[in-house]
Formats: sequence, C-alpha cells, structure tokens
Amino acid sequence: MAKIITLTTDFGTADGYVGAIKGVILSLASDVTLVDISHDVPPQDVRHGAHLLATVAPYFPVGTVHVAVIDPGVGSTRRGIALQTSRAIFVGPDNGLFTPFVRQRVACVALTNPATHRYPVSPTFHGRDIFAPVAAHLANGLSLAELGSPVEDPLALPEPGPQRLPDGRLRAQVVYVDRFGNLVTNVRLQEWSGEGVGPSRIRVVIDDVALDVRRTYADAEPGALLALVGSSGYLEIAVREGSAAERLGLGVGATVEVQGL
Amino acid sequence: MAKIITLTTDFGTADGYVGAIKGVILSLASDVTLVDISHDVPPQDVRHGAHLLATVAPYFPVGTVHVAVIDPGVGSTRRGIALQTSRAIFVGPDNGLFTPFVRQRVACVALTNPATHRYPVSPTFHGRDIFAPVAAHLANGLSLAELGSPVEDPLALPEPGPQRLPDGRLRAQVVYVDRFGNLVTNVRLQEWSGEGVGPSRIRVVIDDVALDVRRTYADAEPGALLALVGSSGYLEIAVREGSAAERLGLGVGATVEVQGL
Amino acid sequence: MAKIITLTTDFGTADGYVGAIKGVILSLASDVTLVDISHDVPPQDVRHGAHLLATVAPYFPVGTVHVAVIDPGVGSTRRGIALQTSRAIFVGPDNGLFTPFVRQRVACVALTNPATHRYPVSPTFHGRDIFAPVAAHLANGLSLAELGSPVEDPLALPEPGPQRLPDGRLRAQVVYVDRFGNLVTNVRLQEWSGEGVGPSRIRVVIDDVALDVRRTYADAEPGALLALVGSSGYLEIAVREGSAAERLGLGVGATVEVQGL
Repeated sequence: MAKIITLTTDFGTADGYVGAIKGVILSLASDVTLVDISHDVPPQDVRHGAHLLATVAPYFPVGTVHVAVIDPGVGSTRRGIALQTSRAIFVGPDNGLFTPFVRQRVACVALTNPATHRYPVSPTFHGRDIFAPVAAHLANGLSLAELGSPVEDPLALPEPGPQRLPDGRLRAQVVYVDRFGNLVTNVRLQEWSGEGVGPSRIRVVIDDVALDVRRTYADAEPGALLALVGSSGYLEIAVREGSAAERLGLGVGATVEVQGL
Repeated sequence: MAKIITLTTDFGTADGYVGAIKGVILSLASDVTLVDISHDVPPQDVRHGAHLLATVAPYFPVGTVHVAVIDPGVGSTRRGIALQTSRAIFVGPDNGLFTPFVRQRVACVALTNPATHRYPVSPTFHGRDIFAPVAAHLANGLSLAELGSPVEDPLALPEPGPQRLPDGRLRAQVVYVDRFGNLVTNVRLQEWSGEGVGPSRIRVVIDDVALDVRRTYADAEPGALLALVGSSGYLEIAVREGSAAERLGLGVGATVEVQGL
Repeated sequence: MAKIITLTTDFGTADGYVGAIKGVILSLASDVTLVDISHDVPPQDVRHGAHLLATVAPYFPVGTVHVAVIDPGVGSTRRGIALQTSRAIFVGPDNGLFTPFVRQRVACVALTNPATHRYPVSPTFHGRDIFAPVAAHLANGLSLAELGSPVEDPLALPEPGPQRLPDGRLRAQVVYVDRFGNLVTNVRLQEWSGEGVGPSRIRVVIDDVALDVRRTYADAEPGALLALVGSSGYLEIAVREGSAAERLGLGVGATVEVQGL
C-alpha cells in the first residue's frame, strides 16, 4: 500500500512552485501517492489553510502525511515542524497552520536535522527544500525523532468561539467563506439526522434577516437565503444556487446571532 | 493494474470539498489511481458538466469509474445513481449530468444501499458521503446490483439539435464556451482529413459575419475570426490567439447559421 | 518504479482538454504516475511555459517525461518534437517551449511516425492525439529513434541577458511575474548562504526606487518593497505579504538596474 502525501499551499497553479515540490518528493519517494488538496488558499491566509485542513484531514487514511505551505514567515525565525496525531503527520511552518490538530498531537518536532533537507536551502522556499524532503523521508519510514528536537509549544491561533449574550442568544462569527459564497460560522450544531428531524426551534439572524435552519439547499427556493448545518457540522448561511457572501456583502468576521440554542 | 477513478465537480480548488472526497476514496480503496478531470465547472452548471464528461470519458480505459458532482439538488428527492456503459461507470446525481451516456447505458441503479455509504450522510455533501464511497466500492469490484435498485429512467436533458430552415440552411446554437473563448456549436461535422481536404463549401454566419471553415487556428491570421471543426468533432467559432466569445460578445445559446451542409 | 509523466499546459481546468490527455496516456500506459505541473499558463504564452519548465524539471527524477502543450501553432507546419537531455525527455510543439533545455539536449526528433499517434489526429489538438500517446510510448520504453527523424535545430527563443552599462551598472529585465506578484529578473545571483552572509554591496533600482538585497521576505516590514534572490537563483523584486507587480504597476519587460555586481 503506497503512502499518501497530500499538498495544501497558497502557491496557485500558474507557477512552478507546486511542481518543484512534487518533483522533490517523487525523487526521494518514488512510490508515494501524491494528492493535491488545494493550491488556491488565498495568499498568506494561514487561517484559511488551517480551516481547510480541519475539514479534509479526518477523511484520509491513518498514516497520511499532510504537507501544508502557507508561509509568509519563510526564512525568518519561525520554525518548521512535523506534528503527529493518532491519524496523521502534518509538515510545514509553525505559524498556526496546524491549529486544529495541536491539542490532539502525540508528538511534535522542529525540523532541525539538516540531513533531512535539500541543499542549498533557499531562504524563500522551504516548501521545496525542507518540507518536501521531510515528508518524503516520513513516507519512507523515518521516525519523527530523526527530524529534529521536540517542540513543546507548537503555535495555536486563538479560535474565539461564539459568545452567550445575557438574553440567551449566541453571538457568533463567520469564520470561512467557500467558493459558493456560503458563510460558515463557528457555531457547531448536531448533524441533522438522516430522517430530516432537525433544529427547528433555532432561528438565525444575520444582517437583520431572520432565518430558519433548513436541512439542505434544496429546501429553499432558488435564490432564497437560508441557514443550514454544513457538511463539517457548522452552522452556515447560504443562498440556494447563489452566493450569500455576495447577496449580503459579508465575509469573514461578520456577526451572526442564534436564538434557541 | 490499478483501477481509475476520475473526479469532475464544481467545487473549485480553494476549499476542502475535493480533498475530502479524495480522502474517503483512498480510505476505502488505497490503490486506485485518482484523476482530476475538472473542479472548475461553473457552479451548478449541470449542462457544462455533461458536455465536459462527453468530451473526456471516451478517452479513458475500459472499466474507469467517473465520479461527477454538480449537484444543486443535493439532499432533495433527486436520486443518486450509478450508470454503466460498455466502457465505464458514472456515479453522481440523477440530474442530467450523465445525459450523453443515458442512451448507451447497459445498466443503471439508484444508490439506495446504505451499507455502501459513509455515515452520517450530510444532506449537503453526497459527493463525500455517498458518491465517493460508492465509487471506491465499484473500484474494489462491487457490482452495480449491490448498490441499490434498478432505475429505468435516468434523467436525460433535452439536447435540441440544429434546425433545418426552408432555404436549406441549418440554424444551430452555441452550446459550450471553453477557456480560450471558443464558441462550440451543436453541429457535428466530419472530422477534417489529415491531408487538409475539408468542408470547403460550407459557410458559417454568426452575428452577421460570414466565415469559411478552416482546418486549424493557424490557418487564420492572428486576431482573425474563423470557423473550424473542433477536436470533439463539432463546428466551432474561434479567434486565432484570441477569444471569439469576447470579440463577438456571445455565449451559450447564441445562434449560428450554416450554409452548404 | 512507475514512470512519471508530467503535464504543463495552457488549457485551464474548466474544460475537458486536460482530462482527455490523461485518459489517452492512461489507456496506453496504465501504470504511469501522472503529475500536474500547471494548466494555468496564460493562453499561448510560450515564454511563460518555458520559464515554468526551467524552474520545475530539474527537481524530477531522472527518466521523467515532461509533456508541455502551449501550442498556438497547432496544426500548422510547426513540428512536434521529443527532446532528450541527460535527465528527462520533453514532448510538445517545437515553438520555443523547450528553450531552456535545447543547449543541453542529447537527442531530438520530430514526431513523424504515425504509428505512435492516435487516430484521427485532430488538427487542433495534438496534445491529445500526438503528444499524449508519444509520452505514453516513451514511458513504456520506446526509444526516441522510433518516434521520427532527427531534428538538428529545435527552436530556441532569444533570451537576452542583462546589459552592462558604461558606468558598470547592469541593466536587466523582468522576465516573469508569479502569482504573488513577485517580479523575477534575468539576473542570476549566487544563492545566499545558509548563514545569512549575502550580496550586501548590491543595490537594485526599479521605477526610481533603490533597494538593498535582503535574504528573505520576512527581512522586510509587511507591505515593504524589497529585492532578494528568489528560489531559482534569480534576482527578484517583491512586496512582503503583497504584490510588487501591483505596487509598481510593472510586469514582464520592465527595466531593473543593478549596481555593485
């Protein structure tokens, strides 16, 4: 069974950066299965990358190595790390990109062993010269301990949850906007049961519009605004066959209030 | 020989949706070859997806499983299906996405067997929870019959062909615009022979401009408008090293008239 | 060890062109590892494609086959070629796309052997009907000599280097702009040593702004303009966490002057 290495970057696909990373990995570990997760993370948007990894990594087989390079601090004093959970190993900069996995980690090391890097190491492209070869070595069976010294405090970005107001409502925030313009909030809801029995007593207010929570997009009229539980289990605001972000002119950071939760 | 599973979606590549699908497939069938066809189908554009599959699927090896998720009706009463032809199996929503293959099908089932799904099934993301695991099971050798009950009437979208006018001309339509701005019509022409003998007596009129049919882009001057037989065998209108869609301000649905056919 | 075939095109990912190429390759060579380099080369921009290949190909294992299709002259008299270096084989149109590899070639042939093509050959899509099957045959072990007759003069585009001015300064050009808006020049600099000792006596002037050469992006303040040695060893102008192309309103062809080199 081939080892899987996934790639998540903000490099886009018009330049050669992703290709160079793939070449380095395949030169060291020719039999891995390379999987593109995304190369279209908005430039330098570490939070977007962290959210994306959180929604993807749980679905991969145990033992997968996830390389992620959204790295505005490349070449500075920020560390490179490999962070291991019971399911996977994450390789990339220690800048908060692995926030969703920090609490569940079983080990974490700084990538300080030069024997596992590619030379010369460009101070502007650790993706190619450090993270790619490290991931290949991990896929080849190298242990975390051989990559460098233990790190006790990998960086976790603050993730403010929704706030309970005196009147019982929750004040929450939009934390992610996807390609369809769906506004994903930080309110985790029970996944709606297959039979369609759902959080009917909940009402969601965004931009002075009050919305019931529906089961799926098709439960609203085409073009209508609706609230629903997204596929990752978080409350989201959507427009059926349209963009809620565009309709409301809102994005990350917008306030959403939830009653009845 | 590894089984091939291809992916065609409107999910874009900035979010985690495609990655989650890949993870689910590789978790169930670790040795498949995953092939990205496109994740940039315009959101909810089922016809675009159907056209794209028609131009791609014939080139894949017999036995390929094609997963396609352009699914505005996800979670509604629209069925999920697996549709088998003599060459391939198509897995996705029964919303017309597989129109080009409906007539040549040898079997079709509704994806009603819960043992072949992933739980809990999100009402907004059947790509991850139904189509991906079903495709993996098919790649692992499961038969169509084990996926659910037979479907006699998979949805085929109407595909109006060109219309013959009283004076003998054909009135046709632009049915697809590609990334180069080429306007692809619904007029099927004999492929031009290798030696350059072609449909010289045909004239094409679009937007009051009359065009001869050329063999290839380079037969026109840079910047010039031309008609030619595209690589899928359909008449198209192009601008050499430019965009016909932009030049003419036309898109899907535009009328094209053909004389001498 | 599976043979690797990489793909670099200007086809974008919204249409079926790339998928068709992948299908043809996998139909002929089911066990190759397909690697997407980029499908977002600007339409018909042969120079962009050549630069991209130069920054990527050196990182791939010896024996890799690189298929590249940026091909405005498809179907004209321009030849298709396979060009072999000591590391790799490049397959595509003879239009300058392989300029960076022409001088180091060990063999080059025109793709004139019809037995290695797919029929009928569309005059508008040699990527699918000539380059893809040729690459598959190469991966399967066919020798260059079996593809066609030798070519003595594969096309190399002029690559004007920087010019030395009477006062000792170098006048150089921006030759590439990447997705981050970094302006890459044609001035090759010693790679900066790992310890941070670098070309401190060099000053770079662009658009009347004089810049020192820094080691990495993070050595400048967020939003500040800087010069540095990019990951391919060329001088580039950047904005930390921003776009130099946007800030300066400059692109390919812009003049950069370097003092102290």
